[in-house]
Amino acid sequence: MPAPFVTTAVGPTALQPREDAATAHRMARSAASTTGAQLSTEAFSHWLRKRRSAHRFHVDRIPFDALQGWSFEEDTGNLVHRSGRFFSVEGLHVTHEQATPRQWHQPIIKQPEIGILGILVKEFDGVLHFLMQAKMEPGNRNLLQLSPTVQATRSNYTKVHQGADVKYIDYFVRPGKGRVLADVLQSEHGSWFLHKSNRNMIVEAVGDVPLDEDFCWLTLGQIGQLLHRDNVVNMDSRTVLACAPFPDTATGALHSDTELLSWITAERSRHDVSTRRVPLDALPGWQRSEESIDHEHGRYFRVVAVSVQAGSREVSGWTQPLFEPYGPGVAAFLTRRIDGALHILVHARVEGGFLDTVELGPTVQYTPHNYAHLYGDERPAYLDEVLAAGPDRIHYEALHSEEGGRFLNAESRYLLVEADETTAPLDAPAGYRWVTPGQLTSLVRHGHYVNVQARTLLACLRASGAAA
Amino acid sequence: MPAPFVTTAVGPTALQPREDAATAHRMARSAASTTGAQLSTEAFSHWLRKRRSAHRFHVDRIPFDALQGWSFEEDTGNLVHRSGRFFSVEGLHVTHEQATPRQWHQPIIKQPEIGILGILVKEFDGVLHFLMQAKMEPGNRNLLQLSPTVQATRSNYTKVHQGADVKYIDYFVRPGKGRVLADVLQSEHGSWFLHKSNRNMIVEAVGDVPLDEDFCWLTLGQIGQLLHRDNVVNMDSRTVLACAPFPDTATGALHSDTELLSWITAERSRHDVSTRRVPLDALPGWQRSEESIDHEHGRYFRVVAVSVQAGSREVSGWTQPLFEPYGPGVAAFLTRRIDGALHILVHARVEGGFLDTVELGPTVQYTPHNYAHLYGDERPAYLDEVLAAGPDRIHYEALHSEEGGRFLNAESRYLLVEADETTAPLDAPAGYRWVTPGQLTSLVRHGHYVNVQARTLLACLRASGAAA
Repeated sequence: MPAPFVTTAVGPTALQPREDAATAHRMARSAASTTGAQLSTEAFSHWLRKRRSAHRFHVDRIPFDALQGWSFEEDTGNLVHRSGRFFSVEGLHVTHEQATPRQWHQPIIKQPEIGILGILVKEFDGVLHFLMQAKMEPGNRNLLQLSPTVQATRSNYTKVHQGADVKYIDYFVRPGKGRVLADVLQSEHGSWFLHKSNRNMIVEAVGDVPLDEDFCWLTLGQIGQLLHRDNVVNMDSRTVLACAPFPDTATGALHSDTELLSWITAERSRHDVSTRRVPLDALPGWQRSEESIDHEHGRYFRVVAVSVQAGSREVSGWTQPLFEPYGPGVAAFLTRRIDGALHILVHARVEGGFLDTVELGPTVQYTPHNYAHLYGDERPAYLDEVLAAGPDRIHYEALHSEEGGRFLNAESRYLLVEADETTAPLDAPAGYRWVTPGQLTSLVRHGHYVNVQARTLLACLRASGAAA
Repeated sequence: MPAPFVTTAVGPTALQPREDAATAHRMARSAASTTGAQLSTEAFSHWLRKRRSAHRFHVDRIPFDALQGWSFEEDTGNLVHRSGRFFSVEGLHVTHEQATPRQWHQPIIKQPEIGILGILVKEFDGVLHFLMQAKMEPGNRNLLQLSPTVQATRSNYTKVHQGADVKYIDYFVRPGKGRVLADVLQSEHGSWFLHKSNRNMIVEAVGDVPLDEDFCWLTLGQIGQLLHRDNVVNMDSRTVLACAPFPDTATGALHSDTELLSWITAERSRHDVSTRRVPLDALPGWQRSEESIDHEHGRYFRVVAVSVQAGSREVSGWTQPLFEPYGPGVAAFLTRRIDGALHILVHARVEGGFLDTVELGPTVQYTPHNYAHLYGDERPAYLDEVLAAGPDRIHYEALHSEEGGRFLNAESRYLLVEADETTAPLDAPAGYRWVTPGQLTSLVRHGHYVNVQARTLLACLRASGAAA
C-alpha cells in the first residue's frame, strides 16, 4: 500500500494565484492613457530631436578589410570577430521538401548568445509608464529611434565590449530590484538569423528609478501614438511590447485554443525542413567582393560593412558587418470581425533559421528579393488584397525598421487591412488560420510561436485600439 | 484618419469558447473510474496474456554485418538505413560551458521524422475509455506492453516499410473522423535522441469504432491501476496520457505562472550549450566492434543490433540497431503539500539532444552510466533523499521501460517521494523549482517544456490519485 499524501501546513501566505489578471488590466489602462505623467507626446518629439542633436552619429560604408576585429576565417570564409563573441556571418544550406525550390543556400547570422530586450515599467499617477531609450543603431535610416530600457547582448553587459556599463541592466538580471511581468525567449528574423532568440522582458521597478538623459517615461497609449509614425519605435521595443500581458475582451474565437494548438502541431509536422551550416566561402550563387557579399542575380540581400561614430553608445566608435536587404518589405494582417470579435489571419511560415520549423507570421510577409527563393514565381497569397486595399479598409499603416544593429535600411510597411468573405473566407486555406488577438497574446507568453513581424503587428494592433 | 474597425455579423454560432473545461472534467471522471465498461482490470490481465501467446515474438542479438538494409556509411561511419528513412546513429559533440566536464562526444539517434503517438478515446456509459494496444517492441524485456492506439513513424504510415496499414491511423490524420482533445509535439530522451519530437495526440472518435483483437478499451482509472505494475504501460502511452487535459483543483501555487515561465527563460538563458553533429567513426572514446559500439570505459550505453520475428507488427520480421544503457535508471519527483496544494520539485535539465537547451525533468533523473559525464564525480542532488526514503514516504513506485523500439532493456524506477523542509526546502536551489501538477499540465500543452521522464511521472502522479 503506497503512502498517503499528507498535508503539511506551511502558512496561510505561501500560495499565490497562478494568474495575475490585474497586470493585464493595468496594461490596458496604460494603453488607454495618452497623457503621460512625465512627458507629453508633443514634448516627446522635442525631446527626441534634442537627443538626436546631443550626440554625433556617423555611419560610413567601408570595405571588409577596413573592419577592425573582424575578418574572414581562413578555412571557411566565415566573417567572425576575433573575440569569438558578438555574431558571425556563416553559410546555410536549407532543404524544404514542400517548397519550390526545394533547397537553397544563403549567408546567415549566427548569434548564439541570448540577449536581453527589457523594458522597465513603473506607475505614475496610477498608470504604468514605460522607460524608453533614445538609442542610435547604425542600420536605421534615421539612426536614432526609441528602444527598450535595455537592449543588450550578453557580450554587451558582460563587457566584452570594454565599454560603459549597460544602464538599468540590474533590474533585469538581479532579483529583488523589480517584479517580472513578462519574460520569454522570442525568435528574430528566421530568414537572416540562425536560431536566434532574445529574452523579452517587462519588469516593474521597486522603488524610485533615477532618470538618465537618454531615457523617458511614456504610457502604452503614448507609445501607441508613436507607433503610428514612421521609424520611431524600434523593432526591439515592438517585440517586447507585444509580449505584455493584455486582457482578452472577446467572447470566444472561431477556433478553440486546443484546435489552434493542434493546427500549429500539424503544420510543424507536415513540413520537412532541414538546415546545415556550410562555409560562407562555399555558398553556391553568392560572390564576395571587397565591399560586399552579393547573390549572383543581385537579389535577396547583401552583406556589407560599416564604421560607426557615436557618442551615446557603450563605446564611442566601432566597425561591424550588416545585412542589407533589397527594398522595403510588406507585412500585413488581414482582419475580420466575427460576431463582434476581431480576428486576424495568421500564416504558418517556414523560415530557414527558425528553431522549430514553423512560426505564425503575418498574413502577408513579403520582401520581393528575400522571399523569392521560397515561393518561386508564385505570387504570395493575399498580397494583392493588401496592396489593392483602399484607405477605407486600412486600419493601420506605418513604416518600421527591423533590428538596426544587424540590418542596414531594412524597412517594412506594416498594415492592418480589413477583409471580407470574398477576399478571405473564414474557412481559411492550408497554412492559414483566423485567430483572435487574445489567442495571439496567449501564444506570445511562450517562445517559437509568433514571429517577429507578427509581434510587431500585434503591438500595432493594440496601438490601433482594436484589440481592447 | 485610419479606417474604423467595423462589425460584420456572420451568425450567432460562429464563435466558440477558447477553453473547454468539460473535457478536463471528463478526464478526471475517467481517472476516478476503475470499472471498465468493456473489460475489467482482472479480465485485462487475462487478455494481455492471451495476446502474448497469440503471437510469436523472438528477438536475437546479431552482429552489425547481419543487419539487413542497415550499414555503416563509408565516409562517416554513421549507421544508416538504405532507404534514408527511419533513423540513423551518428556522432554528437556537445559543449556545455556550465558543466563538468565542459564537453563530450557520444553516439546519438537522429530521427528527423515526426511520428504520431495517438490514443483514440470514446465514451461508454458516460465515461471516457482509451483504446490501448498490446504491442510488441523488441527492446522491452517482456516484449509486449500496452501502447497507444497508434504509434507510428511517418515511414510506418506512409509505408516505407511496405508492411500492413497502421490500424486506426485515419482518426489522427484525416479531419472529421474525431475531435482533437490534445495535440502537441513533445521531445523524447535528450541524451539519446537529437532533436526528436513526436506528435502526442488524444482524439475522441465520432461514431462507432470497430475493435481489433490486439486492442482494448480502458478507463483512465484502469490504466492508472496498470501504471502501478512494472513494465505494463509503455513509454509512448505514458507520454500521451501526460498530455491529457486535467482539471487544476489547487487554490494557487508557490510561484505564479509568470514567475515560473520567467524562471524557465532564465534557465534557458544561463546555459551555453552548443552541439555539433560529427561522424560516428570519429568519436573520441568510442570503439566499434563487430557486435557493438562501446565507450572505452564500458560506460553510458552501447549501440547493438537485433533481429526480430513477430506476427503482430506491420511487417513480420526485421533487423535494426538499438541503444542499450548500462543498468536501470532512477527518475523521481520529490513532493510536498504546501497549504494543502501538492507541489513537485522540477529540475531544469540540459540534455545534448534537446531542441531548446533546457526542459523540466524529474527532481532526480539518474542513470549512473549515462549521466556520469554530465555531473562528473558529483553525486546528483537529492539522490540520497530518494534512495533512502522509507515506505512511509514513497507515494508511488514502479519500474517502466523506455521506448522499446529504440532502446534495449532500458528501464527506470519511477518514484514519487514525499520530502520536508529539511531535505527539500521551499526556497529551492538554482536549477530547481516547486510547481503544482496543474502548472505542469499547462506546460505540457506546449512542446519543449517537460521532458519525457517528467511526463511519465506526471501520468503516474495522476494515477496515484494525488493530482486530483
